[in-house]
Amino acid sequence: MLVVMEQDATQEQIDAVVARIEENGYGARPMPGGQRVAIGIVNNEGPVEPALFTGLAGVKDVVPVTRPYKQVSREFKPEDTLIEVGGTVIGNGHFTVIAGPCAVESEEQAMAIAEKVRAAGAQVFRGGAFKPRTSPYSFQGLGLEGLRILARVREAFGLPVVTEVMDEASFDAVEAYADIIQIGTRNMQNFSLLKRAGRSSRPILLKRGMAATVDEWLMAAEYILAGGNPRVILCERGVRTFVHHSRNTLDLSAVAVVRKESHLPVIIDPSHAAGRRDQVLPLSRAAVAVEAHGIMVEVHHQPEKALSDGAQSLYPHQFAQLCREVNDIFRIVKPGGAGAAQADPREKSA
Amino acid sequence: MLVVMEQDATQEQIDAVVARIEENGYGARPMPGGQRVAIGIVNNEGPVEPALFTGLAGVKDVVPVTRPYKQVSREFKPEDTLIEVGGTVIGNGHFTVIAGPCAVESEEQAMAIAEKVRAAGAQVFRGGAFKPRTSPYSFQGLGLEGLRILARVREAFGLPVVTEVMDEASFDAVEAYADIIQIGTRNMQNFSLLKRAGRSSRPILLKRGMAATVDEWLMAAEYILAGGNPRVILCERGVRTFVHHSRNTLDLSAVAVVRKESHLPVIIDPSHAAGRRDQVLPLSRAAVAVEAHGIMVEVHHQPEKALSDGAQSLYPHQFAQLCREVNDIFRIVKPGGAGAAQADPREKSA
Amino acid sequence: MLVVMEQDATQEQIDAVVARIEENGYGARPMPGGQRVAIGIVNNEGPVEPALFTGLAGVKDVVPVTRPYKQVSREFKPEDTLIEVGGTVIGNGHFTVIAGPCAVESEEQAMAIAEKVRAAGAQVFRGGAFKPRTSPYSFQGLGLEGLRILARVREAFGLPVVTEVMDEASFDAVEAYADIIQIGTRNMQNFSLLKRAGRSSRPILLKRGMAATVDEWLMAAEYILAGGNPRVILCERGVRTFVHHSRNTLDLSAVAVVRKESHLPVIIDPSHAAGRRDQVLPLSRAAVAVEAHGIMVEVHHQPEKALSDGAQSLYPHQFAQLCREVNDIFRIVKPGGAGAAQADPREKSA
Amino acid sequence: MLVVMEQDATQEQIDAVVARIEENGYGARPMPGGQRVAIGIVNNEGPVEPALFTGLAGVKDVVPVTRPYKQVSREFKPEDTLIEVGGTVIGNGHFTVIAGPCAVESEEQAMAIAEKVRAAGAQVFRGGAFKPRTSPYSFQGLGLEGLRILARVREAFGLPVVTEVMDEASFDAVEAYADIIQIGTRNMQNFSLLKRAGRSSRPILLKRGMAATVDEWLMAAEYILAGGNPRVILCERGVRTFVHHSRNTLDLSAVAVVRKESHLPVIIDPSHAAGRRDQVLPLSRAAVAVEAHGIMVEVHHQPEKALSDGAQSLYPHQFAQLCREVNDIFRIVKPGGAGAAQADPREKSA
Repeated sequence: MLVVMEQDATQEQIDAVVARIEENGYGARPMPGGQRVAIGIVNNEGPVEPALFTGLAGVKDVVPVTRPYKQVSREFKPEDTLIEVGGTVIGNGHFTVIAGPCAVESEEQAMAIAEKVRAAGAQVFRGGAFKPRTSPYSFQGLGLEGLRILARVREAFGLPVVTEVMDEASFDAVEAYADIIQIGTRNMQNFSLLKRAGRSSRPILLKRGMAATVDEWLMAAEYILAGGNPRVILCERGVRTFVHHSRNTLDLSAVAVVRKESHLPVIIDPSHAAGRRDQVLPLSRAAVAVEAHGIMVEVHHQPEKALSDGAQSLYPHQFAQLCREVNDIFRIVKPGGAGAAQADPREKSA
Repeated sequence: MLVVMEQDATQEQIDAVVARIEENGYGARPMPGGQRVAIGIVNNEGPVEPALFTGLAGVKDVVPVTRPYKQVSREFKPEDTLIEVGGTVIGNGHFTVIAGPCAVESEEQAMAIAEKVRAAGAQVFRGGAFKPRTSPYSFQGLGLEGLRILARVREAFGLPVVTEVMDEASFDAVEAYADIIQIGTRNMQNFSLLKRAGRSSRPILLKRGMAATVDEWLMAAEYILAGGNPRVILCERGVRTFVHHSRNTLDLSAVAVVRKESHLPVIIDPSHAAGRRDQVLPLSRAAVAVEAHGIMVEVHHQPEKALSDGAQSLYPHQFAQLCREVNDIFRIVKPGGAGAAQADPREKSA
Repeated sequence: MLVVMEQDATQEQIDAVVARIEENGYGARPMPGGQRVAIGIVNNEGPVEPALFTGLAGVKDVVPVTRPYKQVSREFKPEDTLIEVGGTVIGNGHFTVIAGPCAVESEEQAMAIAEKVRAAGAQVFRGGAFKPRTSPYSFQGLGLEGLRILARVREAFGLPVVTEVMDEASFDAVEAYADIIQIGTRNMQNFSLLKRAGRSSRPILLKRGMAATVDEWLMAAEYILAGGNPRVILCERGVRTFVHHSRNTLDLSAVAVVRKESHLPVIIDPSHAAGRRDQVLPLSRAAVAVEAHGIMVEVHHQPEKALSDGAQSLYPHQFAQLCREVNDIFRIVKPGGAGAAQADPREKSA
Repeated sequence: MLVVMEQDATQEQIDAVVARIEENGYGARPMPGGQRVAIGIVNNEGPVEPALFTGLAGVKDVVPVTRPYKQVSREFKPEDTLIEVGGTVIGNGHFTVIAGPCAVESEEQAMAIAEKVRAAGAQVFRGGAFKPRTSPYSFQGLGLEGLRILARVREAFGLPVVTEVMDEASFDAVEAYADIIQIGTRNMQNFSLLKRAGRSSRPILLKRGMAATVDEWLMAAEYILAGGNPRVILCERGVRTFVHHSRNTLDLSAVAVVRKESHLPVIIDPSHAAGRRDQVLPLSRAAVAVEAHGIMVEVHHQPEKALSDGAQSLYPHQFAQLCREVNDIFRIVKPGGAGAAQADPREKSA
């Protein structure tokens, strides 16, 4: 933390800031610059509250220096976190493809899509049972029945399943059925839900809030780790900007930043970023190109009849092409990598 | 809904869109333009799903025409909703000032601040008992004890109280103590919480999400009305933009839009928008100038010792000046208005 | 400038940063914190180039401390700049109303509008002769003939005129006719144009770029002052955000920041911020409420026939109401203020 | 264009809108919907001015249907534009790598960097002679001397050169020396400069404005095509958002949209998007993955001594790795593609 003084701050004002710093148990280190004095705060354990200084006479600005997160940071744990679920490993050295419909609509639908995406190389099946919808009048998901269908999909195809939890009330049920529990973009700072996730035995797939900074996103993950659950998968799904040719703007730089700052795996959801089918393939290729650890893609065997998000769902043959291309690019980006490469359907069929 | 065709769309493609429209029970009205054909959808009750058409051959774009909300709209209920709570009326013709600390820290603190803000003219007391904090290591509020302190403030000063609810688990407790229940910006699309609020007997103060459009905000309110609770107060608190000289960018145009589209009252939170004390007074004056129905302001008797948000909390004497100025402006903007004008401390002391 | 080291930076890496600082003629002051070392740079005259340090081993971050601007800053010149033009003073203690059509369309149109806005209390007339248009096929303004019409308006009504300059080639002509020269939002960082403005004898009305930070805006003004022209009026006109119910999002906090950081006057353009007539009156009242030094408003006697921006132009009777209300609010915000108060038509007619 | 009426609009109001449409020479087609009437405008040649209708009684909204651009659109010219310059082809089927320093600092510097980037496979050399700088006190480029150095680089290494033009005054000089003329992000809507570019014989590399929509960007290109110059290369370089871990947020979806809407080539500038060296390689790989037609990358042999943008400039060995990887990915994305593939240094050295 650095307290920057006004250019015309008096020595009394500087002394008062130094006194306030020392009262709080820190050390103060005044630095006369070309135009003004700045006062460094030293010997602090963790972040210092800026409000201690912002109101004092002669103070122009308070500049934080350290990052606020702790257990999620690579400085705390240098080696990459690998998350193993149902025989699939998510994390560095692997590229995991998660696919399935936006919402589970019926057993027939889920089975039909699962068959297609497994054949194309998906390693995890996705499908919503509890659906967060902007309108109270839209289809809200099949609920518990949706969870049961997901369990039957896992049994039938050997694919672990990921599904979203919307509240604490239904957390136990979701936990009982899902292999990975998703917390959606609108709940990224639902701190009660994050605390419950911290007590879960399941890996948590934590989507970035649509206007969250990377710091806020990592702090949301910190809630889960601080609660005792070290298995968090971060998922970038686009942020809200002035741009309107895609539903959100996919922030691919976030992947490099997260990989540098944190040991947690980070994947991309191109479907919700794009909101339109024709951008999903190029953004998926871009995801592997920036070294994300995987993608989560919406696929539907009859997108024009989907009860939600049909416009962004791929047809199965488009998804098969996508799998081939991301696997090929993965081999270039990560020559010795595993995971997705093994699922390449062309190799299987050989 | 308008389905816009590609310039080179064939008659077969146009016919296929018309057929799809009619299959869904709507009427189709093709319109040849200068460069392309657009097909209007008529005879629909409520919104039409765009995904029905986005994937069809020859379709360039799908343009929605109607707004998605219903019960919150002024077209549904033309007259303004007035919300009466503890003798104070919130809504058109009134300007309500809500004030208090960010968090309830102790009974002494709450009482000291309540005395000051009531004397200055505040009509409702605010204070957080359950605090949503970005960091799991920050002060999380006094919880139930905070609620009890709020009840004692109400008793001592005759001020109704508003406080935030963070989850369904604590909703009953908050409902038992609070006069108005706040749903915070991070929970604006916590749909489970909104549904619970729809079953509440208390008015709900619904903050706008930090990246929510007005449509999404009104749809969140729609959840509450659809659940059976017609008493919602909307609260604009700044949106996230590239701008960094204030914590958020206060979107004052939203007030005019909400007043036009909806019958619900809309107030402004200048403290969270600004994030810094020196912007709160000008933004409060601006709030009344754009005809918001009130403001909610953070005040602390010792901001430099506040456990949260001290940098943006006003000193009591600053708040007193604020009340005088917003009341004076209210008389200009709304010559026959009531509410805040009666609380003008200069008139009281006369 | 503060160079923040990685947590595991070695003493050699710290020494290398210190050496690099000293090589560049500055002083280095290492500060061991709780988790890492940060190194303050002292004895610098003006900003330090961050790139000197970002690439060095063990460096995590480089944090600037001082503001980049100089002559525009209040630290450089504490007293407010007042700009006198044609008998009107723009700056602290005054509230100036500038009004007129988006574009000068004909002498009849300009004269008709000028008569109306002068009667309502406007002190400066606005009208575009050279129009920046998104489309090459839209009306581009009357050019030189537009300038001549503006001169006749000044003569007929005694109002100084402001008009936009789009390039260096037409700068001399605009300078010959206009009392105040506007540089538009799209040219805020047209540095060649800013340099030319720095050699002008006219005051420059510098609009904020639609995605410019306040720092960038002030640096653009710095170009003009550094070039020798101290008379710059800043104009906030809304910034681009995800919000779409107004054309841009008016950033009223910017006024408080500019007033604090700079001695230059700052006004508001509510018309371009809103893009729709019904938001112009509330935003104008908000402008005076946040202590802007004036507003610039589009008015047209026949908005539905305007060649540009008709949707946001006020009818004359709406503008007259606006003048009355902003003047009333100005008296509250600035009890001893001058300028707009004198132009209050109700006082004139008394 | 669709004029949407209020729910309670009267038949008289609807008739008045129809009359206004017909007065302007268009056809009107009223469509009764479930809740309101919308009126389609037909038989128009090109866009209709919304302001004709926004002010009329009973009108709720005006919804544009057609895109505003013409010559740049794929509907106008379906086949891809290929731009040949100095033996290199830019456009569909090719992946062009442009590289060099941010600014030309000296002949030695330019030659040293050119040698490195050509060896690694760059096909075009970049370097700024006239530099747009936020601060008037920063290095502004070598000007004419910089242009002369670029000419010597072309002669020495056989690489065509691209450099930025900042104003009309220096356009002739830049045109005389450069093979491709760049118009920077801050000048994207400098319409006078765009008109001059429309009269140029050189290809124009048009960067997207930092807050421009794709429509505005294409309209800026339309200015150049309308002026007579059909050779425009679009360049996405990141947009301004709330995100601050990169200098700008690279909008990779824009590539898919531009490729669909326009026949012009579109490339990516990862260096200015990122603002930090460690994001340039992943974003470059992402650029080819989304089927951009090339990239423009900043490279410096001594980034820590660069006079501008050193923090984002690659070291030559990093650039060589980048060329290898983007070429490998290009072969996957575009199996039969040409251009960059031929410049692969590993194949050359074979």
